[in-house]
Amino acid sequence: MDTASARVVVLAGGVGGSKFTLGVREALRRAGAPAATVVVNTGDDLWLSGVRLQPDIDSVLYALSGVNDSVRGWGRTGDTERVNAELQAWGAGWPWFTLGDLDLGTHLARTGWLRDGLTVTQVVERLSQRWNLGVRMLPMTDTEVDTHVLLQDGRRMHFQEWWTRHRATLAPAEFENPGMAEALPAPGVVEAIADADVVLIAPSNPVVSIGPILAVPGIRAALRATAAPVGGVSPIIGGKVVRGMADVCLTAIGVETSAAAVAAHYGARSGGGVLDAWLMAEEDADAAAAVDGLGIRAVVAPLWMRDLEHSAALADAALRA
Amino acid sequence: MDTASARVVVLAGGVGGSKFTLGVREALRRAGAPAATVVVNTGDDLWLSGVRLQPDIDSVLYALSGVNDSVRGWGRTGDTERVNAELQAWGAGWPWFTLGDLDLGTHLARTGWLRDGLTVTQVVERLSQRWNLGVRMLPMTDTEVDTHVLLQDGRRMHFQEWWTRHRATLAPAEFENPGMAEALPAPGVVEAIADADVVLIAPSNPVVSIGPILAVPGIRAALRATAAPVGGVSPIIGGKVVRGMADVCLTAIGVETSAAAVAAHYGARSGGGVLDAWLMAEEDADAAAAVDGLGIRAVVAPLWMRDLEHSAALADAALRA
Repeated sequence: MDTASARVVVLAGGVGGSKFTLGVREALRRAGAPAATVVVNTGDDLWLSGVRLQPDIDSVLYALSGVNDSVRGWGRTGDTERVNAELQAWGAGWPWFTLGDLDLGTHLARTGWLRDGLTVTQVVERLSQRWNLGVRMLPMTDTEVDTHVLLQDGRRMHFQEWWTRHRATLAPAEFENPGMAEALPAPGVVEAIADADVVLIAPSNPVVSIGPILAVPGIRAALRATAAPVGGVSPIIGGKVVRGMADVCLTAIGVETSAAAVAAHYGARSGGGVLDAWLMAEEDADAAAAVDGLGIRAVVAPLWMRDLEHSAALADAALRA
Repeated sequence: MDTASARVVVLAGGVGGSKFTLGVREALRRAGAPAATVVVNTGDDLWLSGVRLQPDIDSVLYALSGVNDSVRGWGRTGDTERVNAELQAWGAGWPWFTLGDLDLGTHLARTGWLRDGLTVTQVVERLSQRWNLGVRMLPMTDTEVDTHVLLQDGRRMHFQEWWTRHRATLAPAEFENPGMAEALPAPGVVEAIADADVVLIAPSNPVVSIGPILAVPGIRAALRATAAPVGGVSPIIGGKVVRGMADVCLTAIGVETSAAAVAAHYGARSGGGVLDAWLMAEEDADAAAAVDGLGIRAVVAPLWMRDLEHSAALADAALRA
């Protein structure tokens, strides 16, 4: 593949997806290639106090714009929480959920546009116009498909409550996306995948970030039908999650926390899955043969995205793989 | 009437209504009387960026709680506008409309509760619990009846746009409350008026503050049916509005900007209107006979609410009248 003219599609979740997308943008810029299309998970979107939050959209948006709080790992840098403190003084909102003031500006703009009748795609397009993102960002779907967690004790809660309030400590039995069966891929998603020269699955949470994207009816079929090779980057390095709590999510759906097991979970295109190639860390090199055995070409590469240079090198390796 | 046991109902709009309500609260406290019920205009409520604003409810709420910005005349004291600046940087919101951060806390709490299915009455009840208001606050209706202005040039806009953006400089032809014909008085409003010992109409804008309250089907009938005397306080002193732009509103509906003309607009209960008595300023004393001639007992009193002492004295005069 000629990287200089490659049309690249990335499937991405939040923080891991953002870092990887930054790397892809940088690698494509250096190659003089066109901007990538990033299909972002909207499965953990939520309504809070009547306001629509899209954590993964905003993570990618802020990271690509350079306004993200990279120390804290989410939200805007230099943000304050004056409104949230007041909201909680009213006994409203979620005491365990932080809404930054600058971040709220985004949420309110989005909510107003949605209430005006714009689709999620149109809202994301507007959000993409303020700063020069250097990628084309698409939501996975215009349909609301919030993620709920069914716990082993029978309780059911919004993913954000399970994740943020309970830090994923309550044993999950299942993740549900109400409305997913009726969801459609957002306009342009299937077309972008069909027209791509390469599709990359970012090292995001396979269950609650990439999982919802693949669950949107039509997206998995598009990945299986495209002439482009589909490469994934392992979010597991040396048997451990890089960040977040993907291991708990993987365990809940019966998948071992290992690079090879996640590859098997995604599956080989030749065997009904979505992967042609799988980037694994050097720490996991001894599982490469097992991945090859699945019909997925294992590529061992440095996966730690310590900085933009490492992210870009990883993206370049993924593009070449 | 024995003020010490009087059950008092006040019909009130925003700033003028708030000052008068403070006076009523003070006068009743001094008399050892029960807390008044304040029926507040919700006709200029609005949705902005998906968030529900209730300017008059909040004016009364903040004033009674002592957190209002009395210099600026609206909003919370010490408020900032960080979220609003960000909202506008997104090209959203209304550039001519200010949303304070602390104020937004109220709006978000309210919006969340409304989205959860609470009625406006239940929301106002929750908002009333944070601080000790010393009155029982009721919205005039649970129904959405936003005020629109039909301009003489045929344009139509939300009252807040006409008022705040255009400072009431565009010639209005008519004020409309879409949905008003189907609106019901909020629970407790008709009962409070029926059980009252005295009903007072605050010196609020007769057209866009008191007008919508009287337009809620059932409220005018309740005022006409109650055994309690109904007294009003003129918002016009010496042929001029005390604040705001009530004169433009009055002109639009063909009412002269004078204390007597507003009294005639409300009308005598004996003649199909709602007033038994009308408090007029000393500056307007020469029109007292004309008001008496309408079948409304004119009471000349000092109407300037310079401070709490003056407001309480006015309220006391109104209660005794």
